[in-house]
Amino acid sequence: MSSGYKSWILLTGFILFYVAYLLLGALVFSTIERPVEDKLKSDIQVLKEEFLNQSCVNATSLENFLEKVLQANKYGISILPNSSASSNWDLASSLFFANTLVTTVGYGHTTPLSDTGKAFSIFYALLGVPFTMLVLTACVQRLMHPVTYGPIGMCRQRFGLDPLAATAVHFAILLLLVVLGFFVVPAVVFSHIEDTWSFLDAIYFCFITLCTIGLGDYVPGEKPGQKFRSLYKISVMVYLFVGLMMMYLVLRAFHRMADLHGLTSFFQLPHCDEDIEEDKEPIIEAGDEDQHEAEASAKPLDPASQTSYNTINR
Amino acid sequence: MSSGYKSWILLTGFILFYVAYLLLGALVFSTIERPVEDKLKSDIQVLKEEFLNQSCVNATSLENFLEKVLQANKYGISILPNSSASSNWDLASSLFFANTLVTTVGYGHTTPLSDTGKAFSIFYALLGVPFTMLVLTACVQRLMHPVTYGPIGMCRQRFGLDPLAATAVHFAILLLLVVLGFFVVPAVVFSHIEDTWSFLDAIYFCFITLCTIGLGDYVPGEKPGQKFRSLYKISVMVYLFVGLMMMYLVLRAFHRMADLHGLTSFFQLPHCDEDIEEDKEPIIEAGDEDQHEAEASAKPLDPASQTSYNTINR
Repeated sequence: MSSGYKSWILLTGFILFYVAYLLLGALVFSTIERPVEDKLKSDIQVLKEEFLNQSCVNATSLENFLEKVLQANKYGISILPNSSASSNWDLASSLFFANTLVTTVGYGHTTPLSDTGKAFSIFYALLGVPFTMLVLTACVQRLMHPVTYGPIGMCRQRFGLDPLAATAVHFAILLLLVVLGFFVVPAVVFSHIEDTWSFLDAIYFCFITLCTIGLGDYVPGEKPGQKFRSLYKISVMVYLFVGLMMMYLVLRAFHRMADLHGLTSFFQLPHCDEDIEEDKEPIIEAGDEDQHEAEASAKPLDPASQTSYNTINR
Repeated sequence: MSSGYKSWILLTGFILFYVAYLLLGALVFSTIERPVEDKLKSDIQVLKEEFLNQSCVNATSLENFLEKVLQANKYGISILPNSSASSNWDLASSLFFANTLVTTVGYGHTTPLSDTGKAFSIFYALLGVPFTMLVLTACVQRLMHPVTYGPIGMCRQRFGLDPLAATAVHFAILLLLVVLGFFVVPAVVFSHIEDTWSFLDAIYFCFITLCTIGLGDYVPGEKPGQKFRSLYKISVMVYLFVGLMMMYLVLRAFHRMADLHGLTSFFQLPHCDEDIEEDKEPIIEAGDEDQHEAEASAKPLDPASQTSYNTINR
């Protein structure tokens, strides 16, 4: 009974802390962004007045005109002459849209305009989102051995580290490599290709994309007259897919480390399920064998999972 | 060796089918949306010419003006008089932004304007996204007993269903209730509150939101002069959080059903890990006890998991 009681206190604590975290974020965003927004707002009003003064247009007709311009812009259609050359719905762009839909990134720089398009989006994502998760999981499943278990086993053999230290060291190296290979290097590339992006903008884009937030304020290959636009869009899609795979791999490696260190049991969360790889992988090296035994012996650190496996077998 | 071989063929098949699925989606989107886009494009050009003919403005100065208008609009700042009253960065809006950031929905209807804001977004989401996942997982973990195990056990006792049929019936009912309670009913409410949303628009919004795609073409409470705007925004946040929890619950119930039916083993994917609840839940009813035994006896259907549990215990 006291375990259940503790569990509810923990959950309430989590939720309260979550609400506090949201409020804190709101305060900071409001403080940082409000002045910038106010400045931009007054600038645009000054601009409008200047335009009205210079010309013979009356305010109402200008506003009517602008309303339609902004409405079209919302659907990704710009009134400016240089941006009307490329379509948002050519094959490469549609592919890019389909990809951002099923990976749940959803930049929203282009959105379906017709009711048919909206209905098809629902249907397409309904199948596509679980399917993408399946493909990503299947890929990560095959990568866990060469990228996680293998190196951890090697760490332990070469440097004589205990399982806890080996997983921690491995996780730190994996994280560093992923940050370099999927955030820093792509950001350098993007900030070179996209004229208007600073390095911070590019890092921000990589982060917002690989977390699947996809705000859509920065989308690659959208500037007018982009060279090799289709190829560029497809490269970004590959980056997106492989990047998401890596994020998922890091998450699973972290989950596994948290299991071994007893963190998941402490917070009463589900464990990372690793049973399939341990049996199904065709080739088990000597180092791996060793490592699996060590994992089995490391399990008693975590009494909850040990008893539960017994429960299932009895 | 043949098992490993089969596993790679399966993976390659998955990836090829995934690419085909993306290409198919691209073709359909391109076919549906291209004509609508072309029409809107020519409309806006006609509008521009009409505006230029009626007034004494020359094309270059109008284009310069419009470029700045659209740039400001990209940051969520409209030149239209009726929309400048409410800020995108008041406390309720900032809270809403923070919430869409950490849940990875990311509508992008408002985006940080300053470099500080972008840097803070990265930092905030870096902590916030895993934290939200943690809170959601912790909530779902507690809901699995009353919502999944309890009803399944009851199904089996009352109607004498076998475990496989009981999980399937339970999943179908759960799915129906979630679709009704978190898609259909909210869509009715949204299409009443938002004047410009049809029922399809509202369903599309619910779906795009709860899949965390968040295109941002429909965002509640953004129309000028929205009544009780702050309260409305906060209600949408609650809907978002509870809705995501339900989506996650449905996903776990599905995963568990797939485990029992041997689907996850067939596709060589990780199993749904349920060990914690089975031990930690303080009150285990008679029906549940019964059900756990049934699960244990159902396990041999799925030889992979059975051997793997043994492996861990040896």
